[in-house]
Parts: sequence; structure tokens; C-alpha cells
Amino acid sequence: MDEIKTIVVNRSAYADNDLEADALRSYLKEKGTFLVNLMSSPGAGKTTTLTSLINILKKEYRIGVMEADIDSDVDAISIAKNTGVKSIQLHTSGMCHLDAGMTKDGLDGIKFEDLDLIFLENVGNLVCPAEFDTGASLDIMILSIPEGDDKPLKYPLVFEKCDLVIINKIDTIEYFNFDFEKCKKTILMRNPNATIIPISAKTGENVNEVAKYFRNKIKSWKEN
Amino acid sequence: MDEIKTIVVNRSAYADNDLEADALRSYLKEKGTFLVNLMSSPGAGKTTTLTSLINILKKEYRIGVMEADIDSDVDAISIAKNTGVKSIQLHTSGMCHLDAGMTKDGLDGIKFEDLDLIFLENVGNLVCPAEFDTGASLDIMILSIPEGDDKPLKYPLVFEKCDLVIINKIDTIEYFNFDFEKCKKTILMRNPNATIIPISAKTGENVNEVAKYFRNKIKSWKEN
Repeated sequence: MDEIKTIVVNRSAYADNDLEADALRSYLKEKGTFLVNLMSSPGAGKTTTLTSLINILKKEYRIGVMEADIDSDVDAISIAKNTGVKSIQLHTSGMCHLDAGMTKDGLDGIKFEDLDLIFLENVGNLVCPAEFDTGASLDIMILSIPEGDDKPLKYPLVFEKCDLVIINKIDTIEYFNFDFEKCKKTILMRNPNATIIPISAKTGENVNEVAKYFRNKIKSWKEN
Repeated sequence: MDEIKTIVVNRSAYADNDLEADALRSYLKEKGTFLVNLMSSPGAGKTTTLTSLINILKKEYRIGVMEADIDSDVDAISIAKNTGVKSIQLHTSGMCHLDAGMTKDGLDGIKFEDLDLIFLENVGNLVCPAEFDTGASLDIMILSIPEGDDKPLKYPLVFEKCDLVIINKIDTIEYFNFDFEKCKKTILMRNPNATIIPISAKTGENVNEVAKYFRNKIKSWKEN
């Protein structure tokens, strides 16, 4: 395993993040690289889900991962070790989210030109990351069973903003008081277009469904 | 149960939050009201822990709870229903944390003059709340077993800032890969003065230890 590259990223100097995000999205489209922004609470299973998913998809796509954290590089090391794909760590200098400028710094660092698919693992936070467009072509979030079924009520924006909601740790549902149907209903009330896929990243249950979702999304992104 | 009062709180107009927080702390000391700021990730069990703890302490202290969320009032309703103490909901207008000005607005709303002990349940977020002093005399955080033992590595500030770390959901430890000793060591590396108490808010296990901790803290706060 190569040593993990760590990049310090800072708040963008650009006043209009949305404009910068749109420009980044167009640029990546032109280059043929599909960027995915992954959000969740701390500990919902972003890295485990990525590991499981990448091990299914890595024969079909050239994949890279940018792991954002305030400190530590345990996630980038874990991804590199458990999947073998190119992985870098972004340090956010205490910032609670990534914006388009910070994402661009990360892309410069990972040298994305030879990659088809890049996952950006955002800072674990259900609030701030949803407020800043990173320039990704797909926004996904992970809600985990132990967090409870009331999260779409309390953190509306992230559920409104994402295309796919993965409900992780379903292998633990019997130990927690989680009403799956109620949760699904609240998510769809916030975002009628959301796709919802329950999985267990730990056991691998249903991760194939997420892989299938990605294949379709990338295919239609290429065609449009 | 009375209807739950909801207050919309906004970012403080004061430039220097630290000054305002110190002033609020002195004012509350003078009035004899002990304010506690409770932080955690979404779904770590703040409301369940408070319910369990308040049901032990409510015969000894006149208690109030201010529940902060971006949206919904499920937590304030739950506290009022399950403990009977005075409870209000603070809506943060999308903000990811509370500052001293917002806390003061909450205190004006709860009419704290007849209360000995007030719990402020901050927005579920391991990043931003730690950056803003609320004016509380005690900062506590809850880390839950399903989130993983690496959180003190990734979210340093909140662990550095708090007096007490409660490790919740220990009843689920056999289902998760959580190294308790490693986690404790990392917390103490971040914050050598932190007290660490493992509990299960759901089963009530060890919540008495937290109650004992509070009695001591309130006693020495009154004496100083």
C-alpha cells in the first residue's frame, strides 16, 4: 500500500459557490469523470459502504476516493487497504463541510484524469454539507438504523438535497426501535424523487442493489 | 401535557460570542441556575439520556429542558411526556449550532427564574456546536457505540471542549466492533481532564453514575 496523500483544503475564496459548482460539474462531464458526494452523520457507515460498493464496481470503473475529515487519515488508509483503489485524505482545517472550491483542490490532488468514478466522502455531519453544492453529479446520503427513524424530520435539508438515501446497518434493526415504513414515508414527504435502498454494508446485504443504481446513473449521465 | 412552546432563535448579532457567553454564565450564577450544554451526533441518544437522567434528578432539582433542532418538536414533546419537566423547543432557522445569544433567547422563552438546572440539547452535530460557547457551566457530549471508537480521532474539538463524555448504547456493544479501551485512551489524549461514563440510556444501566456526577458538579459550582 502506498503512503496516503493528505491535502489541506480551505473555504473557497469564490463568493458564489453555486456558480463554481456548476462549472466544476461541466468540466468533469467533459473529462468523463462521474463525481459522487456522500453525506451522513458521523459513524453511519460511509467508509464501510464505500468499501463494500467499490469492491463490486472496481472491475467495471477506474475508481478514486477522496476522504474528508477534520483530522486523522484512518478512512483513506482503510479504503486503500481494503479496496486497492486510489485514495486521498482531505483535511478541512476544522471546517464542517466541503464546498466546490475545496472539492476542486481535492481533485487536483487525486489527479482525476485517469478515473471514471470518484467518491467524495464529505465530513460526517447532517447539517452543513447539505448547504454547499460540491459540483458532484450525484448526492447520496446514508442514514443508519441506530440513529433512529426521526432524522428526516429533524434534518430536512440533507434529505431534500440527495438523490439516493441508503439506510445502513439493517442487520441491527432488531436491537433498535426503528420503524422502516414510517421513516420511508417521511423521507418521501421531504423528497418525493428520492430512491431509498436499505443495506448492511457490514454483511454485504443488498449492496448489489446500490451497485445496480450506480450503473444506471452513470449510464444515463454519459448519454445525456 | 401542556402544548410545547417553540421559539425561533437566530445567529447572535454580537460579534464576540465568548464575551456574551461569559456574561450569560455570570448572570446565571447570580440567579442560581446551572446550565448544561449537551452535544452529540444525530441519534446518539441525547433525548433518551436526558429522560433517564431527569427522572432520577427531578425530585432534587427544579429542572427545565431546551431542545434545539432545525425542524420538528418531537424531542420537546417526548421530554415533557416522559419526565413531566418544563420543556421548550428551539428552532435554529437552519443553523447547525447554538451560540450564547441564541441560548439567551431560549432562556427568555423558558422563563428560567424558577429553575435550578437547565439542560440545553444542542443541534445533533459533532463539529459546529463545539466552536461556540453557549454560556453553559458544563459541557457534555454523548458518543454512542454504533458510531465507532474512532470518533475522537476525527472530531477532536468537541472531545477537547467537554467536561464529561457519556458513552451510550453500551447494551449494543456485542453487535458493533467498538474497542472501549482504545476509545477511552484517545479521548484522554485529546482531553486529559475528561470524565468518561459508559451508560445505556435505554436500559438505565449506569445512569445513576451520571446523576452522581451532576450532584457533585452542581454542589461545587454553588460553593465557588
